[in-house]
Order: sequence, then structure tokens, then C-alpha cells
Amino acid sequence: MIKYPIKRKAPEKQTNYANLGMTLETDIIATNAYYLANHIAVIHKKPTPIQVVNVSYPARNKAKITEAYYKTPSTTDFNGLYKGRYIDFDAKETNSETSMPLKNVHLHQMEHLRNVHEHGGIAFLIVHFKKHNEYFVLPFSLLEEYWQSQHQANGRKSIPYEVFRERAYPLKFAFNPRLDYLSVVERFLF
Amino acid sequence: MIKYPIKRKAPEKQTNYANLGMTLETDIIATNAYYLANHIAVIHKKPTPIQVVNVSYPARNKAKITEAYYKTPSTTDFNGLYKGRYIDFDAKETNSETSMPLKNVHLHQMEHLRNVHEHGGIAFLIVHFKKHNEYFVLPFSLLEEYWQSQHQANGRKSIPYEVFRERAYPLKFAFNPRLDYLSVVERFLF
Repeated sequence: MIKYPIKRKAPEKQTNYANLGMTLETDIIATNAYYLANHIAVIHKKPTPIQVVNVSYPARNKAKITEAYYKTPSTTDFNGLYKGRYIDFDAKETNSETSMPLKNVHLHQMEHLRNVHEHGGIAFLIVHFKKHNEYFVLPFSLLEEYWQSQHQANGRKSIPYEVFRERAYPLKFAFNPRLDYLSVVERFLF
Repeated sequence: MIKYPIKRKAPEKQTNYANLGMTLETDIIATNAYYLANHIAVIHKKPTPIQVVNVSYPARNKAKITEAYYKTPSTTDFNGLYKGRYIDFDAKETNSETSMPLKNVHLHQMEHLRNVHEHGGIAFLIVHFKKHNEYFVLPFSLLEEYWQSQHQANGRKSIPYEVFRERAYPLKFAFNPRLDYLSVVERFLF
């Protein structure tokens, strides 16, 4: 038998596990990086829209923005391409145990998701119930149902947690990818 | 005959025609607004990515960014959905009469367009030759051909204007929509 020399493992790249699951957005960005690296999908977060008011040029070729403000996004945060299909979604976290308030979704975002849906794209929300530590894919059609009924007499201003349990699609948190939402999309929304 | 009172026309909303065709980006944004309003497509410009370093809170609920810098975009400026298909492109202007320099396309943008192409999306550039005042839709495949050959011996670092005339697709500037690039996409890239 050949005696192999004892080989010390190279130190692994430090991973800060404390950050795992820290924010939904971070987890989705990490998931998208996994999808891209593994040739599964091309999905990116859009930059945060910022209104620039003043720029100075303290050094050559390096513009310094000295006054700017956050703008309300006119669309959703995430979009891209999966198996030739257009994907569009936003991520929402709620501290409520019992429901997701509809005011978490801006009117512009709702209109955008509706447009996407009508033009043949796949539109949804990824919702994190922090108190339950549960994640769901909420298809646009179910969101629309509650959105429309909120304006009716006795219409609810939120989607009950129980409705998520019964009619939305659960999304498991895992190591890598952290939130494999495309497997859910593939199974239920494709 | 009824004698109608002379009715003065309500002053029309001022349109600054001087701005028509001012910048390619503005024209594409106006075209996209037309597409959206007419239920043709859902295509948006992504916000410019900005690295925020310092934020102050001079008034309640109004964060003021006091130090920030422009970042290099990691993808293209425009993407969206047309007849169920994923569309992704960037806009490039050139002052050259004879060619579009390939350095106008960042490496990250090229990689992104390649990913889009490979995942079944429609990837291209809209190129404006300012000296000729001519617009073209340059499909990814033709861009890729020149991109790859630039690293070969005697490889060109640009795409000749004549190649645009012969192998890319002309795009007419018009009143509304200003740059109807989707009619070109529909005809040649769909």
C-alpha cells in the first residue's frame, strides 16, 4: 500500500455563519449568485434608486456625490431569466405572526407585477414570516385576490398566515442555495 | 346654425422638442413608456448603481445621503418582458464615423449579455452613430463575433460602421415611439 503523506487541509474561506439568514435580501442575493454560477438562472437585484442632487469632483475621475436621496422604487427589486422565462419578484419580511399587511406592497410594485403577469412573465413575492421563521412563495394571482378584495366592504388589509399555509408555497431555508425559490417556481408556477 | 362661442384652446402641455433625440437613453426611456402605456411590453431602465458611504438624518423620515460614489454596473441598463420573452440590452453612443469601439462595452456587460443569450433571452445593443445620426440594433451574436476576434492576431478593437450597415438592423427615429426597437426585435431576433 502506498502511504500518502498526511495532508493538512487548506484553511477554508471564512464564512460568517452569523450572517446566514440575517436578511431576506441577502439570502436571495446569495441564492441568485448560486444560480448564476451553476448556470441555472440569470437573476439580479436592481440597484436602489437614488436621486442625486449634488456631485463634487475632489479628485480626478472620481465623482463624489454629496447630496442625494432615496427614491421609492417604481418596480420590484428582482428580475431575470430562468429557462427562457421572465421572472419578477419582490421580497417582503413581516414581524406579524398572523398575517402579511398589504401595505408592505407599494402600489407601483403591484401595478408592475400585474403588468408582468399580463405579459406572460412569472410574478410573485417571497415572504418571510420572521416570528415563524417560515418562507413562502406567494404567486401574483393569490396576492391579486387579496389586493382587490381589500377595497370591498369588510375587505381585509392583510393576507392571513393561514392562507399562506394553505394556498401559498413553502420555501425551505437551506445551506446552498439558501432559498431555492426556483424549484418552487418550476413546480407550481411554470 | 348654432353659433358656438369662440373657444380658446387650452394651452397644451409644453413639450420641449429640443430634447427630442437629445440622448439615446432619454429616447429609449420614452419609447419604453410608450410600450408600457400601450400594453406592448414591460421594459425598464435599472437605477444607476451607487455606493452609499454616509447618510445623515436632518429631518424626520428623510434620510439624506451625504457621501456616495457611482459604481460600475454589473449588468446592462435595460431589461424586461415582451410577448412572454425576456429582453435585455444596453444603449451605446459613439462619436466615431467609422466604427463602434469595443471598449464601449464593459466586460461585465458582455458576460451578462452572454448569460442572457445562453439562457434563452433576447440580448442586443442599441447603437447610435451620432455623426451619421443613425441607429442600429446589434444582436448579441454579431457583437460576440467581434468581441472574440479582438483577442486574435490582428483582431480589430471595434466593429466597423460598414458591418452595422450590412449585418446589424437599422432602427428609425420617429415621433412616437421614438425608437421602435421592438419592431426590429420582433422581425429579426424573435
